[in-house]
Amino acid sequence: MEIIGDPQKLRKRLDELRVERGSGFQPPRAATVGLVPTMGYLHEGHLALVRAARQDNELVVLSIFVNPVQFGPQEDYEEYPRDLKRDTNLAQEAGVDLIFAPKAAQMYPEGYRTFVEVEGLSDKLCGASRPGHFRGVATVVTKLFHIVGPDRAYFGQKDGQQVLVIKRLVQDLNMRVEIVVLPTVREKDGLAVSSRNVYLGAEERQAARVIPDTLHWAEAQVRAGERDADRLREAIRERIAAEPLARIDYVSVNDGHELEEVDRIGDRVMVAVAVWIGKTRLIDNIVLEGLSRCGES
Amino acid sequence: MEIIGDPQKLRKRLDELRVERGSGFQPPRAATVGLVPTMGYLHEGHLALVRAARQDNELVVLSIFVNPVQFGPQEDYEEYPRDLKRDTNLAQEAGVDLIFAPKAAQMYPEGYRTFVEVEGLSDKLCGASRPGHFRGVATVVTKLFHIVGPDRAYFGQKDGQQVLVIKRLVQDLNMRVEIVVLPTVREKDGLAVSSRNVYLGAEERQAARVIPDTLHWAEAQVRAGERDADRLREAIRERIAAEPLARIDYVSVNDGHELEEVDRIGDRVMVAVAVWIGKTRLIDNIVLEGLSRCGES
Repeated sequence: MEIIGDPQKLRKRLDELRVERGSGFQPPRAATVGLVPTMGYLHEGHLALVRAARQDNELVVLSIFVNPVQFGPQEDYEEYPRDLKRDTNLAQEAGVDLIFAPKAAQMYPEGYRTFVEVEGLSDKLCGASRPGHFRGVATVVTKLFHIVGPDRAYFGQKDGQQVLVIKRLVQDLNMRVEIVVLPTVREKDGLAVSSRNVYLGAEERQAARVIPDTLHWAEAQVRAGERDADRLREAIRERIAAEPLARIDYVSVNDGHELEEVDRIGDRVMVAVAVWIGKTRLIDNIVLEGLSRCGES
Repeated sequence: MEIIGDPQKLRKRLDELRVERGSGFQPPRAATVGLVPTMGYLHEGHLALVRAARQDNELVVLSIFVNPVQFGPQEDYEEYPRDLKRDTNLAQEAGVDLIFAPKAAQMYPEGYRTFVEVEGLSDKLCGASRPGHFRGVATVVTKLFHIVGPDRAYFGQKDGQQVLVIKRLVQDLNMRVEIVVLPTVREKDGLAVSSRNVYLGAEERQAARVIPDTLHWAEAQVRAGERDADRLREAIRERIAAEPLARIDYVSVNDGHELEEVDRIGDRVMVAVAVWIGKTRLIDNIVLEGLSRCGES
């Protein structure tokens, strides 16, 4: 496994590997590349993405970059956990071929001034709480796609809004990459794995269970026939508010496409929440589909 | 020569041609692609770009697309001259392999919402007079680059600010394409060729000569040692204002990189103007380099 920080070097090395690992038969074919973009401090969610990428592609690139442009001025850019040594070992074990770990100045050199924005989708939910966040995400993902040129890129459903923004970005800008989305990986008690879970004290970690527990409860309500979105939102708020260490950022019951809040739950619904547990902001979501069919049966 | 409107079909056909026209020797190599992005109504400036692309690449793609997103609501999107038949003949003669001529709905289908912005550079000069113009340019160029995947793309220096925006876009977003800029092609009397020249009546066409005449005069002033940018701007304004049919939009004496207006002319200067002749807005510019060297001799 190799670790490269310079975008030009990464690109050059990948060009060589594409030929080396490609098919030598006639007609010759370049090796396919799977990209797993991360901010590092790898957890089981990231590793699930790497394993999928390993299965689908001849080359697997893992990018590790805590992207300053997607953090607000009051956010945890500085404190965000970093451990390249640990990440390197985990990536090696998981079968990564190449780690791309640039420095901020290699991605945003002096004079940098170009940004990509997916309008509308970026202003809602996490975008409302974190202005500019998805502009930063769309920009860095575009750059990573251009540098690596992957055939497929892998993202976790935990960042549900991010997935919708990136799919839209790829479609709108005619990018030539397949976006593969994998289910949220959870701890035994249901909490979605996240690099930010490391911020939680023991008591907070216990309190954080209210998030998956409430989403699980909401899923059961919808499957049992609840279609009144207002009533569901209110009930979710009450359940989360019952946990003293929890403070709600948002509770969304939306269409799962445009992130528009719905009055009545239709065929598809995304229930998404952001909750502060002490000083840690956690997000989670579930997406339910084919509901009208269920409702009618 | 083929004409294709659908982005997916264009991409697929180009994939075939890249193999067909590539080198069959060991190791095999895909054909290189040169892209000439235009809004059609081809003139000698476009054809110079095509000829350069023909010389440098095994495949030449000409895109013809009057991009609605780069026109303001009061601008000439509807009236912009279009003649695909004429363009097709000219392109064929010039050796174009493939014309990509999508409809607006093929580039911006319903729900489209992703835009690329090169900040700072886009607000000045033409960007100040045409808010959103360069956002539209950066967005469509990004899309065209993704659809065609060119090795090289060709632009004319006449659109001097556009050239700077696109070079910055490519650098910032790590795009894998070489931007080739060709000198402004001019009519015999010096007027820069432009599809919009067709708007000019006979008297206006005569009056429009004030633009190249003034730039030519400005160049002589600078070459003779003028370094006071304010004095030069003022003199340019006076010369253009002396033409009754001309109305100045802007006169810029800038650094030719960041488009910052300069007080004192340094090693490099761009003199750029936008002038209304009747209802037609025309732009032109000159870039002078290596001036400090000349000044010292």
